[in-house]
Amino acid sequence: MTARPASAPTRGPLGLWLVGARGAIATTCVFGLDAMAHGRAGTVGLVSELPAFEGLGLAELERFVVGGWEVRDGSLADAGAELAHNGVLSHAIVTAGAEAATDVDARIVPGLAAPGDERASAGARERGALAPRAQVDALIADLAAFRERTGAERVVVVNVASTEPLADASPAGANLAAFEAALDAGELLPPSCLYAYAALRAGCAHVNFTPSAGGTWPALRELAEASGVPQCGSDGKTGETLVKTVLAPLFAHRNLRVLTWQGYNMLGNRDGEVLANPAHKAAKVANKDAALRSLLQGSEGLHTHVGIDYVPSLHDWKTAWDFIHFEGFLGAKMSLQFTWTGSDSALAAPLVLDLARFSELALRDGAAGELAHLACFFKSPMTGGSHDFGAQMAALFHYATTRSAEPATRSH
Amino acid sequence: MTARPASAPTRGPLGLWLVGARGAIATTCVFGLDAMAHGRAGTVGLVSELPAFEGLGLAELERFVVGGWEVRDGSLADAGAELAHNGVLSHAIVTAGAEAATDVDARIVPGLAAPGDERASAGARERGALAPRAQVDALIADLAAFRERTGAERVVVVNVASTEPLADASPAGANLAAFEAALDAGELLPPSCLYAYAALRAGCAHVNFTPSAGGTWPALRELAEASGVPQCGSDGKTGETLVKTVLAPLFAHRNLRVLTWQGYNMLGNRDGEVLANPAHKAAKVANKDAALRSLLQGSEGLHTHVGIDYVPSLHDWKTAWDFIHFEGFLGAKMSLQFTWTGSDSALAAPLVLDLARFSELALRDGAAGELAHLACFFKSPMTGGSHDFGAQMAALFHYATTRSAEPATRSH
Amino acid sequence: MTARPASAPTRGPLGLWLVGARGAIATTCVFGLDAMAHGRAGTVGLVSELPAFEGLGLAELERFVVGGWEVRDGSLADAGAELAHNGVLSHAIVTAGAEAATDVDARIVPGLAAPGDERASAGARERGALAPRAQVDALIADLAAFRERTGAERVVVVNVASTEPLADASPAGANLAAFEAALDAGELLPPSCLYAYAALRAGCAHVNFTPSAGGTWPALRELAEASGVPQCGSDGKTGETLVKTVLAPLFAHRNLRVLTWQGYNMLGNRDGEVLANPAHKAAKVANKDAALRSLLQGSEGLHTHVGIDYVPSLHDWKTAWDFIHFEGFLGAKMSLQFTWTGSDSALAAPLVLDLARFSELALRDGAAGELAHLACFFKSPMTGGSHDFGAQMAALFHYATTRSAEPATRSH
Amino acid sequence: MTARPASAPTRGPLGLWLVGARGAIATTCVFGLDAMAHGRAGTVGLVSELPAFEGLGLAELERFVVGGWEVRDGSLADAGAELAHNGVLSHAIVTAGAEAATDVDARIVPGLAAPGDERASAGARERGALAPRAQVDALIADLAAFRERTGAERVVVVNVASTEPLADASPAGANLAAFEAALDAGELLPPSCLYAYAALRAGCAHVNFTPSAGGTWPALRELAEASGVPQCGSDGKTGETLVKTVLAPLFAHRNLRVLTWQGYNMLGNRDGEVLANPAHKAAKVANKDAALRSLLQGSEGLHTHVGIDYVPSLHDWKTAWDFIHFEGFLGAKMSLQFTWTGSDSALAAPLVLDLARFSELALRDGAAGELAHLACFFKSPMTGGSHDFGAQMAALFHYATTRSAEPATRSH
Repeated sequence: MTARPASAPTRGPLGLWLVGARGAIATTCVFGLDAMAHGRAGTVGLVSELPAFEGLGLAELERFVVGGWEVRDGSLADAGAELAHNGVLSHAIVTAGAEAATDVDARIVPGLAAPGDERASAGARERGALAPRAQVDALIADLAAFRERTGAERVVVVNVASTEPLADASPAGANLAAFEAALDAGELLPPSCLYAYAALRAGCAHVNFTPSAGGTWPALRELAEASGVPQCGSDGKTGETLVKTVLAPLFAHRNLRVLTWQGYNMLGNRDGEVLANPAHKAAKVANKDAALRSLLQGSEGLHTHVGIDYVPSLHDWKTAWDFIHFEGFLGAKMSLQFTWTGSDSALAAPLVLDLARFSELALRDGAAGELAHLACFFKSPMTGGSHDFGAQMAALFHYATTRSAEPATRSH
Repeated sequence: MTARPASAPTRGPLGLWLVGARGAIATTCVFGLDAMAHGRAGTVGLVSELPAFEGLGLAELERFVVGGWEVRDGSLADAGAELAHNGVLSHAIVTAGAEAATDVDARIVPGLAAPGDERASAGARERGALAPRAQVDALIADLAAFRERTGAERVVVVNVASTEPLADASPAGANLAAFEAALDAGELLPPSCLYAYAALRAGCAHVNFTPSAGGTWPALRELAEASGVPQCGSDGKTGETLVKTVLAPLFAHRNLRVLTWQGYNMLGNRDGEVLANPAHKAAKVANKDAALRSLLQGSEGLHTHVGIDYVPSLHDWKTAWDFIHFEGFLGAKMSLQFTWTGSDSALAAPLVLDLARFSELALRDGAAGELAHLACFFKSPMTGGSHDFGAQMAALFHYATTRSAEPATRSH
Repeated sequence: MTARPASAPTRGPLGLWLVGARGAIATTCVFGLDAMAHGRAGTVGLVSELPAFEGLGLAELERFVVGGWEVRDGSLADAGAELAHNGVLSHAIVTAGAEAATDVDARIVPGLAAPGDERASAGARERGALAPRAQVDALIADLAAFRERTGAERVVVVNVASTEPLADASPAGANLAAFEAALDAGELLPPSCLYAYAALRAGCAHVNFTPSAGGTWPALRELAEASGVPQCGSDGKTGETLVKTVLAPLFAHRNLRVLTWQGYNMLGNRDGEVLANPAHKAAKVANKDAALRSLLQGSEGLHTHVGIDYVPSLHDWKTAWDFIHFEGFLGAKMSLQFTWTGSDSALAAPLVLDLARFSELALRDGAAGELAHLACFFKSPMTGGSHDFGAQMAALFHYATTRSAEPATRSH
Repeated sequence: MTARPASAPTRGPLGLWLVGARGAIATTCVFGLDAMAHGRAGTVGLVSELPAFEGLGLAELERFVVGGWEVRDGSLADAGAELAHNGVLSHAIVTAGAEAATDVDARIVPGLAAPGDERASAGARERGALAPRAQVDALIADLAAFRERTGAERVVVVNVASTEPLADASPAGANLAAFEAALDAGELLPPSCLYAYAALRAGCAHVNFTPSAGGTWPALRELAEASGVPQCGSDGKTGETLVKTVLAPLFAHRNLRVLTWQGYNMLGNRDGEVLANPAHKAAKVANKDAALRSLLQGSEGLHTHVGIDYVPSLHDWKTAWDFIHFEGFLGAKMSLQFTWTGSDSALAAPLVLDLARFSELALRDGAAGELAHLACFFKSPMTGGSHDFGAQMAALFHYATTRSAEPATRSH
């Protein structure tokens, strides 16, 4: 008997299908993959490149072929030039990646424009005007075409689009039957759910990197299980919240009482512009605050605030200031404050690639439903559990150890 | 069948013997114990009060009777008034604790003044002038008298004195025989080693909360093992280094390359004054830097700096600014900076009480030598291991789980 | 010829009448005056004590007798104890000032409770329910009684009450006749305007230390001129805005283009609680922003934001973080960020005393209407002019030089 | 009589001769002049472009032709590429400026290498080995050749080289005769003094933008007066010190007592590398501290610290953190902290161009000796006076007003 024949890495192409395929994160992924493939950039920022994951059999990055949905017109070359202008990508990387970008551009097709989105492309508006059932049929057909055209053995769909308005709980989300009925009845459903539905129906792994509803509704969780495909999310933990989830355990472990935690976030990219809209901001703020509150349950009377302000001059360079006021022994009041300055795209893109690799492995292993070991990547992990980043990483390391040790008996 | 009869908490008094017994940390311990005993203060800041340690059988705080060595004249009342003036203790706590402070004052005896220390008390200078063997004999006699006078069943000695100059490695430290020979030969040895020697010889647990040599020399490690008593250290992890050891793993786990980590510390208490002396500062800086370097082994070409400046106006309120410059995906340069403002004494004192409780339990359990599960309390744990605070806490939680589960078969 | 006989300091008592007489600022004034009078505190923080004002003939602080209006029950002793608990005043100062506080308490009478203010005292609610004309008559009678009881030669009324909701422009404010008509017609007018009206009618100087309307309406400006009494305001420039108005000229003078100026303020005292109400916050935010915008007229496309958040754990310790993003030569983007941590009351109280002294001098000199030389004390100076703090101070120094040189020919 | 005929702007070329002509500041000047001349960049950062100086008759920037001395090999193109790589200059500006840079390169000649400087060019080492008198003769000849080659009517020499070690007071500096004697005797003199001597002897205006001795010795002040040429310096006030000299007056004007002012500077360019050497650092630190101490004379017992650390990863992006601890009314302790992040070169270069214009005007006007109105540009103004930046700017505005109003009667 040969060990793990089913999951032995094969050398064929793999698909990475991005929702929001010409956004800043997607653009950084595309130029980054090309730069790494040609030795123009290293792998700093990629969790999957840590020594701990060496024996895990993750797919080589070069195998991923990128395509996706996008609601805007434009080209990756232009998006890359803008990121270079704002100091996120180097001119050298953008210039050298021009050809690869053009190739990906050819695999980007219109997404679903929200009703009334006047900046959307004609194609996306046309799609957005279809009945829901027709929309998902079209999306599924896109994925099939991508597979056929590229020969991708397995496809991972990652949503990196801008945050949707916080959706009210819909009866349509309660179970798969209700969801299908709503599709047929022409009910208005969040695009992120339609993308997730299409991905799961098409046998693709699905990753929700945004705070949008995506695959989180019970209906779509049921679908993932039923389809035997893995999914994970939500809301990539890239910056200020990441710092929060390493600092909050410090206070909890030292039995220090956090009185107040104020977090002020400023960002200036398209994502920031969208979040300037209170309806869109609500989902994000909720995720950022929930993590903190769960980690500081011992701090009686905790006062928290999360602000997100749109500051155009910062472009992609998110800057956050957090002020933590805490009480120590005998009532002594102390404080910790931090300022985080990071490129949102440079922080998010490698995690998207990590998630593509880990999800591809799960798909290869035949995992169905939510992947608990990937909680460390998300502000609001679908599978719940501790928000403590160290504990989440320990879980990922544990997965790596046990998965490497077990003979794989599942295939897909 | 009687479960764990040996380690069942008995109700007799326990001893907490402090080196530097009228320093700011010791003073905070004394007034804090009294305030908690009378319900005037809660247990915020005490790790040992976390729910995870509830079933562990740690001794009640009220059982600890305090005494110690001190090289200065003065009273705990005066030391408390100074801390109240500087906003570390409340006036109410200091006023109400006057009687308890007087009681402890009566149990404080002269320590070993360093040669030429003109601010030392007459008694401490007299002791400092004795031959080393006579010094340790006197110290051992102090501990015996303390036990007898208080009826303390078990005694924990905690060194909270100011940092000594960085001692050169001495042949006397290599093994116990060499150390004893040096004592007899009248060789000059660091006072912290003599205190540790006396404590271990007297069957007391020993905790080195300072960066001084204390019990870290092989000779004294040998003595602890041989005497069957536990010890731990060194250098309480109270503030900026604590934050460092929770933040550094973030960068390592996300495969972000730290380019530079500059840490600037300012403090204004007696400890700060002593550290303004470069010889004394060396030991502290080394500990603070080593933790960081071990956690960031993946960051090639890491540049670090640790500064400690004496700023009298801050008194006990240590303020530190750290600047972390790091590289993300595709060379993007980002930064995190933080400002920590905390009362050194309010942060350290509860940890001293925690260590007294955990060490007393180890002594009760018959543990000999270094206590690996207490690494989370120290900048430079004697037992080595990861500096990652989360991992260190996991080890302490693991100890609690396993120790609680095991029938205790040892007694002391 | 005798020089300046009219303005030679006479030794009789002077009155300082505070609106909000048991608030944190007023309480700090009362205990501070007592502490200075008895040599228990120096004059740090008092602008009027700078050497430049030595020859100006400002009244000695000991001459001021304090009284005022207050809408809450309570005592200055309790208010002082709370400030001591929060580290603004020392226990020593509060304890020693008990008698003086009791004396002042006896001179505090009910103010005008806003309709529906359930936390107001019975007396203040009763007054608040009177018709406007009856209200101002009662207020004027209070001032007359204060003068008579204390023998105060001149009285300065300073409004240090919490910020009122931003009042809509009222036709009643347009001129004095309209205001009087509105009073008689029983029209609802902001209490701050009624206090100002009463003060000016009673021949007292009036200082509006708050962002409330106070004496800023044309009607009240007309009254000040007509009554021949001086007034000044509005909104004491104590903290973050003070820093803004010294930093903004730096950018203007160096021709650096400020792209973004974000200011986040946090405070936790009663003032903060009131400002948590958006209607009350509006006035404050407008003042803070206007100063900045006027100083940075050369920065095209300037983006600004002023946030004020209520953070109870901070009590009186206002903490503000400002982030300034600016463009330098050839488009280089740079930043300055600052964190300000200050006690609101300790910053404001000495300025209130300064304003009492400068206003008393103006009253003595027979100045009528708005005092332009006091612009440096306000976020929104009634007399307009540059917000540049250095330029405003230059104007005050110039006043001191010229006023000292001129023979005073006016008396009051 | 026609007003100001002598100073009417003539259209001929003017010379800007830089010491350290391929350093980061000089490189930014060269590419910046070219970019502005071709409309590729605006004039943000240039003080001389403020509306207040419109009528002053400053020379148009396009008239300046650049040349200079340099001790290293290399090209401006390479220096520009490095600055673009580090985000100081845009790629577009460096690419477009290639031709202009080559032209300037042709006008750069070897400077005086310090003895033992192994990284110096062969030419600079040869020159550095000459006798002092031969050195200055060669330098004077360089300036004459530059004038002749370019037809520059007037030349301003600006020293923007790296900081020299702090020079001991030399008897040679006491007066011009002693200096000339030392030159003839072959005495070792600081290169910055030799450059200044040559400039002044050659009838050029001289600007010392560095903390090196330059023209500050009495001997050279005498020479400037005797030669009838203007000079100014020392040490450009570009970043942290600039902020200090606007913030310190705030505390002085509000009678707040500064207890402690700690300033920590980090920089990573060649200048930073040179300053990592304690001897070189001494001059810089002294200037930074002196300004503060003079502005805070009222703060009794003031404690200050200025640190400069070399942090290679920052390159040209100087980052400074200042912590200001101050006492307010009744002993309340408060703090202000700021973090400054700026490109040293982008901040300095426009000031160099400003100084060239203001110095050229002074030269044209026949001003001899030190220019007091330019104090705002320097950390250590030769003419002394207040370090208050607002007051210094007021002096420059006053100069502009009076100089514009006066008929010019001098010519050069």
